[in-house]
Amino acid sequence: MSELRGACLIGQSGGPTAVINASAYGVIKTALEQDCITKVLAAQHGIRGVLEDDIIDMGKEDEETLRLMMSTPASLIRSCRYKLKPYTEDDTDYKRILEIFKKYNVRYFFYNGGNDSMDTCNKISEYLKTQDYECRVMGIPKTIDNDLFDTDHCPGFGSAAKYIAVSTAEVVKDVHVYDKEAIVIIEAMGRHAGWLAGAACLAKLSCEGPMFIYLPEVDFDMDKFFADLEECRKHHKRIVIVMSEGIHDKDGKFISEYGINDTAIIDSFGHSQLGGLAATMAHIIRERTGAKVRGIELSLLQRCAGHAASKTDRDEAFLAGKVAVEAAVAGETGKMVAFERKNGENGYECVTKLVDLSEVANLEKCVPRDWINEEGNNVNEKFMDYILPLIQGEIEQTYENGMPKYAHLKRVKAEV
Amino acid sequence: MSELRGACLIGQSGGPTAVINASAYGVIKTALEQDCITKVLAAQHGIRGVLEDDIIDMGKEDEETLRLMMSTPASLIRSCRYKLKPYTEDDTDYKRILEIFKKYNVRYFFYNGGNDSMDTCNKISEYLKTQDYECRVMGIPKTIDNDLFDTDHCPGFGSAAKYIAVSTAEVVKDVHVYDKEAIVIIEAMGRHAGWLAGAACLAKLSCEGPMFIYLPEVDFDMDKFFADLEECRKHHKRIVIVMSEGIHDKDGKFISEYGINDTAIIDSFGHSQLGGLAATMAHIIRERTGAKVRGIELSLLQRCAGHAASKTDRDEAFLAGKVAVEAAVAGETGKMVAFERKNGENGYECVTKLVDLSEVANLEKCVPRDWINEEGNNVNEKFMDYILPLIQGEIEQTYENGMPKYAHLKRVKAEV
Repeated sequence: MSELRGACLIGQSGGPTAVINASAYGVIKTALEQDCITKVLAAQHGIRGVLEDDIIDMGKEDEETLRLMMSTPASLIRSCRYKLKPYTEDDTDYKRILEIFKKYNVRYFFYNGGNDSMDTCNKISEYLKTQDYECRVMGIPKTIDNDLFDTDHCPGFGSAAKYIAVSTAEVVKDVHVYDKEAIVIIEAMGRHAGWLAGAACLAKLSCEGPMFIYLPEVDFDMDKFFADLEECRKHHKRIVIVMSEGIHDKDGKFISEYGINDTAIIDSFGHSQLGGLAATMAHIIRERTGAKVRGIELSLLQRCAGHAASKTDRDEAFLAGKVAVEAAVAGETGKMVAFERKNGENGYECVTKLVDLSEVANLEKCVPRDWINEEGNNVNEKFMDYILPLIQGEIEQTYENGMPKYAHLKRVKAEV
Repeated sequence: MSELRGACLIGQSGGPTAVINASAYGVIKTALEQDCITKVLAAQHGIRGVLEDDIIDMGKEDEETLRLMMSTPASLIRSCRYKLKPYTEDDTDYKRILEIFKKYNVRYFFYNGGNDSMDTCNKISEYLKTQDYECRVMGIPKTIDNDLFDTDHCPGFGSAAKYIAVSTAEVVKDVHVYDKEAIVIIEAMGRHAGWLAGAACLAKLSCEGPMFIYLPEVDFDMDKFFADLEECRKHHKRIVIVMSEGIHDKDGKFISEYGINDTAIIDSFGHSQLGGLAATMAHIIRERTGAKVRGIELSLLQRCAGHAASKTDRDEAFLAGKVAVEAAVAGETGKMVAFERKNGENGYECVTKLVDLSEVANLEKCVPRDWINEEGNNVNEKFMDYILPLIQGEIEQTYENGMPKYAHLKRVKAEV
């Protein structure tokens, strides 16, 4: 493979995570060390930054700032949700991308995101080949949802999982201080895949753990739910239940859109927008049982809790970025860095592999049915065995004056 | 002062905090070291545990378990909300308390809680005097609300404040990744006092910080709010706003009870229960502006976030328990341990003092008006100066298998 000299360009895409900047740092640090890489550039707001020529020079940032990226949550180079049309239909965006790549002599392109972003990445890779413009294109996985195909798990998931598990444990501790009946519904993100809600099972390593966990992989049955709850209430006064936002009934209707008595009520005042799943379920349970019920939506808190990130997750996020650069320099293109799990003598080990971008684009990986109990109201030991290694270790967040110290970029415009 | 020999008894009362068990450990560890204290007992569920003779022997717990109390959130000895009637009206409970105290020869009683609990503590102290039963009664402050009178601040507040500040910073970081308009309303606890919402001001030490903070100390004016918001939207796309759950209009009506167009809508389906303040305000703003608005209620998460506790707060919580025992052994009774702030050569210093229980019982301390800006939509430098020392330092949470390791008590029944 002949050496390819030129600039590298990184973009972040889709929802932020607690460790997405660790991947960016993995790319930037490794790229700065390569002789064949002449400049390390970043496109602000992902592919939109390419289209709008909003490119900054990461080589102009201080070393300390770059290091702080390791513990700075949320997409520091900023993100977008932008879907490219197939270039066979409309190549306007692609022509512009090529123009900008040529302008800065971009020969290495790294795109960090979820399945939609891998689709973007794949399309750009394919298009550039048709134009005889040599550029190595690599995808770097990122999503708290953990739903990317062909990889054991995704950077970002372990930290969100740890936050959810720790927060659930703390809520369980809180709920148990009084002798009164209390039911708490915790809502985790996850529209189609239940990985995040399932993570709450880890709370039982610290204390009682949640009584039930509901994932979108199993149709939610309201009658079965209340039968389980009533049985549980006979033995327990304090009941914590965790649910994926995306749970739905057998007809595919989201439970978050249910009203009282299982009937959706969307009145002219638009009340149904008031609460999400947790608020809706809390309301339904309150109405049916008369019990004191509280709904807690973890909301954005679970996505960017840098202060509670998993060290394993952060180190693997860095690794994914590093390996992407090394592979591209070695001649690879059109690939995504993926993780494979080895259970060696020292237990869990994570190794990287490369998979074709076309194989992961747009696909979603759900929790296997046999990792959920038969009743469909909790995850089982298989899920627990899978997730436990991913939350190991705590990051050393840098604090200043008692508050997290984040990286602040100078964002120097790239020169041609 | 003659030496008083006998057992000591501790109870926890009111809402839990991240560091309430650090105060309990301060009492237990110090009491175990006193020659005059024959046994170290704890009443489960506070004063209810006394009435129901549910007393456990803390001397039977392992040393490691006791040490783990320092980083175990929520009331480990369990709590209650139980209001004693004045003994001049009905002395039934008091007679029972005296009976139990005599049964275990309780000569030192420590009660850890907020203003209601200090009232309980005060009444017991007064009653025992009328019965010529020598028992030294001490209150230990505890509340995330920080609304106790006659003390600079309360154990539990610094940790909740730190959690709110860090979480707000993380949400700000999250919201800024996209280029689209986004408004987020974060709801902090605080029915009458705005200390917790005010703590969000610290986020600006890490990043942009919230644009507005609303406290219940200033009447909330919906028209003024929208005027401020519209002005802000001219310059900012991403706007994070923090509000105390207890903000109300000039007529005292809670904003959380507002419906659309400033009219409370509580229909026959009880919809108004669906969301709290954050959901309600998000809905109102969405209706009026068409902007994308998200409401985040920090809920129980802010109360027991042991993993994100303030080291200063935890150390002071321990100190309060320790000083309570030392003072009681030295002959004090009918007092609450309070904090005084000294700003010496080395900056912030916290010293303890004793205040009469009767002076703190049932009173509420609010944020001074001149710590809030003139516009009434944020706190100012005075608030910042006050709160900054209280969130300093991070605790070393003990982790096992990637999850917090909490103290689990054996709860051995006390013997006579």
